[in-house]
Amino acid sequence: MTWDFSHIDKKGNIRMVDITSKENTERIAKALAIVQMNRETLFKIKENEVKKGDVITTAKIAGIMAAKRTSELIPLCHNINLTHAEIEFILREEQNSIEIISTVKCREKTGAEMEALTAASVAALTIYDMCKSIDKSMVIEKICLLEKSGGKSGHWKRNELSSDNT
Amino acid sequence: MTWDFSHIDKKGNIRMVDITSKENTERIAKALAIVQMNRETLFKIKENEVKKGDVITTAKIAGIMAAKRTSELIPLCHNINLTHAEIEFILREEQNSIEIISTVKCREKTGAEMEALTAASVAALTIYDMCKSIDKSMVIEKICLLEKSGGKSGHWKRNELSSDNT
Amino acid sequence: MTWDFSHIDKKGNIRMVDITSKENTERIAKALAIVQMNRETLFKIKENEVKKGDVITTAKIAGIMAAKRTSELIPLCHNINLTHAEIEFILREEQNSIEIISTVKCREKTGAEMEALTAASVAALTIYDMCKSIDKSMVIEKICLLEKSGGKSGHWKRNELSSDNT
Amino acid sequence: MTWDFSHIDKKGNIRMVDITSKENTERIAKALAIVQMNRETLFKIKENEVKKGDVITTAKIAGIMAAKRTSELIPLCHNINLTHAEIEFILREEQNSIEIISTVKCREKTGAEMEALTAASVAALTIYDMCKSIDKSMVIEKICLLEKSGGKSGHWKRNELSSDNT
Amino acid sequence: MTWDFSHIDKKGNIRMVDITSKENTERIAKALAIVQMNRETLFKIKENEVKKGDVITTAKIAGIMAAKRTSELIPLCHNINLTHAEIEFILREEQNSIEIISTVKCREKTGAEMEALTAASVAALTIYDMCKSIDKSMVIEKICLLEKSGGKSGHWKRNELSSDNT
Amino acid sequence: MTWDFSHIDKKGNIRMVDITSKENTERIAKALAIVQMNRETLFKIKENEVKKGDVITTAKIAGIMAAKRTSELIPLCHNINLTHAEIEFILREEQNSIEIISTVKCREKTGAEMEALTAASVAALTIYDMCKSIDKSMVIEKICLLEKSGGKSGHWKRNELSSDNT
Repeated sequence: MTWDFSHIDKKGNIRMVDITSKENTERIAKALAIVQMNRETLFKIKENEVKKGDVITTAKIAGIMAAKRTSELIPLCHNINLTHAEIEFILREEQNSIEIISTVKCREKTGAEMEALTAASVAALTIYDMCKSIDKSMVIEKICLLEKSGGKSGHWKRNELSSDNT
Repeated sequence: MTWDFSHIDKKGNIRMVDITSKENTERIAKALAIVQMNRETLFKIKENEVKKGDVITTAKIAGIMAAKRTSELIPLCHNINLTHAEIEFILREEQNSIEIISTVKCREKTGAEMEALTAASVAALTIYDMCKSIDKSMVIEKICLLEKSGGKSGHWKRNELSSDNT
Repeated sequence: MTWDFSHIDKKGNIRMVDITSKENTERIAKALAIVQMNRETLFKIKENEVKKGDVITTAKIAGIMAAKRTSELIPLCHNINLTHAEIEFILREEQNSIEIISTVKCREKTGAEMEALTAASVAALTIYDMCKSIDKSMVIEKICLLEKSGGKSGHWKRNELSSDNT
Repeated sequence: MTWDFSHIDKKGNIRMVDITSKENTERIAKALAIVQMNRETLFKIKENEVKKGDVITTAKIAGIMAAKRTSELIPLCHNINLTHAEIEFILREEQNSIEIISTVKCREKTGAEMEALTAASVAALTIYDMCKSIDKSMVIEKICLLEKSGGKSGHWKRNELSSDNT
Repeated sequence: MTWDFSHIDKKGNIRMVDITSKENTERIAKALAIVQMNRETLFKIKENEVKKGDVITTAKIAGIMAAKRTSELIPLCHNINLTHAEIEFILREEQNSIEIISTVKCREKTGAEMEALTAASVAALTIYDMCKSIDKSMVIEKICLLEKSGGKSGHWKRNELSSDNT
Repeated sequence: MTWDFSHIDKKGNIRMVDITSKENTERIAKALAIVQMNRETLFKIKENEVKKGDVITTAKIAGIMAAKRTSELIPLCHNINLTHAEIEFILREEQNSIEIISTVKCREKTGAEMEALTAASVAALTIYDMCKSIDKSMVIEKICLLEKSGGKSGHWKRNELSSDNT
């Protein structure tokens, strides 16, 4: 059993981006998540008749709180200070779904895409949790970045999937 | 400015389920998430050529770690001890996607659905984070419960959306 | 500079209670906190006119979430699994105050007093946070244990300060 | 079952303050909490005879650590970096109480009131935890902001309740 | 660019041990860490003259608190409830070092080795933090498991490195 | 039972350093940890034959994630935002050990020594956790600061223990 050693670190190398020399600039990121459910569940959410309580408010708080802790969840995500986190919920009767749009802002050396995506995802998961006793088959769809601005890479906007024609 | 007061707690009432008198039984929950991406990104993940490093391993660790902390994210979710968390990743060439299947187990008074869903979601978000510099337009789809067993409500299995025909 | 050494650990000794040999029994703890405010603030909370949003629901969620994480805050508190956490809010017109009563349950080897107290405290702090832009002078009063049951020490109930004559 | 949908987000709307465009300035916040106890408990704390160990040091550490994590507890509180957190404990023989005064500083776009209040509260809760085996009836009183400075709203100081005449 | 896909999950496969079917038994784990320092630093710790304050008490609290959160730090570590955590500090004049011995107990399906090791490590790191302004060159040595009992694998005790002849 | 009270806070005084008036400057800290093991364990890690999976990648992720949360573990450590965290692993055949070198960067008012040390320590503990079923006797050695730069105290470099002759 002999072998010669070198850095094992070549394959499977995990690398956090070094943002030390980047400037603090205002960054905004917007993300989407859609919770698909049956008609009755949507109705109960709207009428605030879900047994566990106010679904939208709970989901909103959960999403905002998760946004602040994104770097604890996503391994290579930098820990940053958010200056704003907002989540909007749109009930879509035609599609039996709730559309979740999160907007996160910061003045940091890196963008807040993961924070926006995490906010939308955890808000969606919370809707699931609040309603799962009446509808286990809910599906969370289309978690994606809608838009980002700030930083060197500038403005980016999703074109094919706008929040209106999902 | 006079008014009569009663419990404000009637509307918007948030209610955690009381599981004090439930039995500890073995619970299993399985959840799905699918990350849709362009062909090139999938190829780079497969060939381990993504700059940030080994995408699948990082996503798996992130998902397992998130499962253990689900109750910190989901407001009305009980804090429970997991006895197992496993995440499987299947690369689907035809669909340009990665399918994530999480399985979580515990011996508790409540099920582990939220833990399984959180594991799959955070694994998916981590894939996004690892690859976002090459592909911002990735979309996370079909986060849903696949199966659960244990507890009073017994066995439940999703029928319309199996992991094979997503 | 010579000295003889022995265990430095004699003075200032921190000691976590060893509960290894205790039985799991059902434990209930009830705690109180009162937020004293001016009349206008109370009115705005009641009418849901506070700019930051639904004060009571946010405070309730914050309190429940904090209860689950009590052992991260209180150094010698054991980490336990809660089976229930509930917080009630009573608006007291005569005293210009909101009374917060938390009830926490578990089946563990130790009681949930600290969890109930933490739930009430964080709910109270959240009320402060939601309303501080309109009233910085709010005061949180009478955080205390109201009642506990379960465990070897049995049932205990506060007598001099009932939640009715605070 | 037909209904027309609009943003459900109108009522119960939770709103984090957007501080993106605010300046970083030096902020100081001072808060108070008072733990009322029986004479014997106070004596034991002073003489370091409490079984669980050094009450004041433990409470101080707990308070400082909690201050750093305030934004994880208070839903709409921004995550900020503290530059200082200090907690002072004054034993009041005449009132059989311990007065806790926390001072928190930062250079951020928002104040540190919630951090100071959380530090004082968790320090007080820790005193309760350390002594609850000898005195369950302790009460935490007068958690309030004493003073704040920095930011657009400038200097604020509580007048009616100074730490000397509580 | 064609390739055939199969489970990518073969190499680099991360696997949490499945403990679902294991019994809850009493587990004890003991771990060691040694902080090597210069004579003057040790003296200041002993005489409680370190500027940041009581080093041993702070290290002890930090170690106990870290033990409770081990599963948040170590990716494949199960989240378990500890029934006891104790840390002892021995000042060794001859070796200019502080010996840290942690003991952790639980009644779970898995052992508490990682909790004991984490407790000792974080206690040692805290000693470093408290004294680093006077001595940056301190070294933490010999973090290792001393003993474990409980569970299927039974009793294990380190023989070559006892805490007496380190 | 009479006594006169003054600030109890004199002895055992815990003091966080006040960094409010310090400048944000680029800070770099480098730390070391060495995991000593038997030959067979080292071989299995190298060949990726450890049952729990890819040891090095898991340890690296754990270390990076822990670095971001250092201030939650170390009581008097300021919470800061890291701009980079990197961990290198060198397999040393001759010494049957793995050398872990962490590098952490930030632009803050205080250095990142504790973050670098925590990253190296948690990476080492994770290696232990991944391999403990095959080798309980592993020892973590020589956790220490290798180098730091930035801030008023300027550049510091360990001389007696370089990473090459450990």
